[in-house]
Amino acid sequence: MDLMAYLQERRDLVNRALEGYLPAVRGPAFRVVAAMHYSLFAGGKRLRPILCLAATEAVGGDSGEALPVACALEMIHTYSLIHDDLPAMDDDDLRRGQPTCHRKFDEATAILAGDGLLTEAFQILAGARERYEGREKALLEVIQLIAGAAGYQGMVGGQMLDLMAEGRKITLKELETVHRLKTGALITASVKAGALVGGGSRAEVAALTAYGEKFGLAFQVTDDLLDVEGETVEMGKAAGVDAARQKATYPGLLGLENARGWARLLVEEAVAALEPLGAKAGPLRELARYLLARRS
Amino acid sequence: MDLMAYLQERRDLVNRALEGYLPAVRGPAFRVVAAMHYSLFAGGKRLRPILCLAATEAVGGDSGEALPVACALEMIHTYSLIHDDLPAMDDDDLRRGQPTCHRKFDEATAILAGDGLLTEAFQILAGARERYEGREKALLEVIQLIAGAAGYQGMVGGQMLDLMAEGRKITLKELETVHRLKTGALITASVKAGALVGGGSRAEVAALTAYGEKFGLAFQVTDDLLDVEGETVEMGKAAGVDAARQKATYPGLLGLENARGWARLLVEEAVAALEPLGAKAGPLRELARYLLARRS
Repeated sequence: MDLMAYLQERRDLVNRALEGYLPAVRGPAFRVVAAMHYSLFAGGKRLRPILCLAATEAVGGDSGEALPVACALEMIHTYSLIHDDLPAMDDDDLRRGQPTCHRKFDEATAILAGDGLLTEAFQILAGARERYEGREKALLEVIQLIAGAAGYQGMVGGQMLDLMAEGRKITLKELETVHRLKTGALITASVKAGALVGGGSRAEVAALTAYGEKFGLAFQVTDDLLDVEGETVEMGKAAGVDAARQKATYPGLLGLENARGWARLLVEEAVAALEPLGAKAGPLRELARYLLARRS
Repeated sequence: MDLMAYLQERRDLVNRALEGYLPAVRGPAFRVVAAMHYSLFAGGKRLRPILCLAATEAVGGDSGEALPVACALEMIHTYSLIHDDLPAMDDDDLRRGQPTCHRKFDEATAILAGDGLLTEAFQILAGARERYEGREKALLEVIQLIAGAAGYQGMVGGQMLDLMAEGRKITLKELETVHRLKTGALITASVKAGALVGGGSRAEVAALTAYGEKFGLAFQVTDDLLDVEGETVEMGKAAGVDAARQKATYPGLLGLENARGWARLLVEEAVAALEPLGAKAGPLRELARYLLARRS
């Protein structure tokens, strides 16, 4: 398969659906809608929605039905980036080569834009109930899954841990916990949610959850590798920022070669987890392998 | 009825349920849980949960079933207070006589605690699906209702408008829009959600929604009156802060006597909206009348 063409087609699909959900900058509080819009369309890769749709298809489901879930996941991801970039958090000026939300607007607007995207995600999920006629329980399970992955036992907890770890030496185990919560939880939830709305069997959901966990960790390890190896132009953010901030990274803790080897192992494990799903899981296999080759 | 005893009993009920949902400060990201806990138990009146439970009973429902919804509403209310108090927003040091979340902890933790409470609310709502066996559609409608009231078309939009209005003269109509979104939307949603989970008829839900709208506005007008008339000790926040900040208020725009008269009118309208519900709506009637007498 042509993975690049596949990714482009999926990104377009997700972008059109997102435009439909958050259409125009209007109403009295237009400023916060403009900020939500700005960050949501600032060039994201749409990785989580694509994983979600691919997981739905991997269990034989209709990816069109999973679109509201895919869009909600991207909104939650975008909210987390906006809040993580805030001066009180990571204090970043650039995101994907463009001014971060609080630099483009202001801090208060960025906080509210994040809050708005997070809330809108649940509005969209619950609002999709007509499409899930007869499968309302599965939809409620997906909402709980996503909220759990985003909240204090997931993404919010991971960001807290990450901030608590700054400026002190942390172990490999602690770093894994940070990433499992901060990025892994929502990535895993994206795959699992796709499997659930696709009507996957218990075994299929378990296989895809295992894939999501390995994928999420591999994503973080390769992200750290990119920070060491990448060039600023390609990444849209400054390379070497982690080192400059003295943030713990996998290459820093394991050495460059070991980190590369570990990433390869994780990708192999992710691909192996897809075994029971056969050919329908092709895109998920390619996506995992692509982590090792990506340049941004 | 003895309204004070009723309110105390309901507050205790809600507090016990909230303790159950957010039990102990533990886990690796304990700091954010501690901050969520701190703000959630900082002496809130539990008005929204109480309105929700009373609305469930007003349509003949079992308020025990509405407890998850009531708790989710209080978490969303608390998140909004934490974020509104942030330095980039209203920059408040005190809330209910105690240090605000970012003063007690720090700014990053307060942002995350708000995010965590907002997300947890949806986790609790969707997680209550076992209790709503056979009524999953109503639960999904409630989730969408609450998300809509909290998001950019409700509370988030209202806070944005409020910030946009600072330092310039606004009209009475604009002030009403701010409050309808910032506080009115979630209060109305609390009453409506209670009616929905209680299995209210379409007419009952409409009557309670009308009550919620009038109540929400009356709440804001009396809140502004308290700021002018109240004493700092009783309110737990500095009296006269609105004037000091040159924030538009109803007494400021209408004059003190007219604002008092308008509050009385709104309460009468709220009570009149309950007409079709009969005796079961007694507590909601008393709650509305109490707005005119409250001192905090």
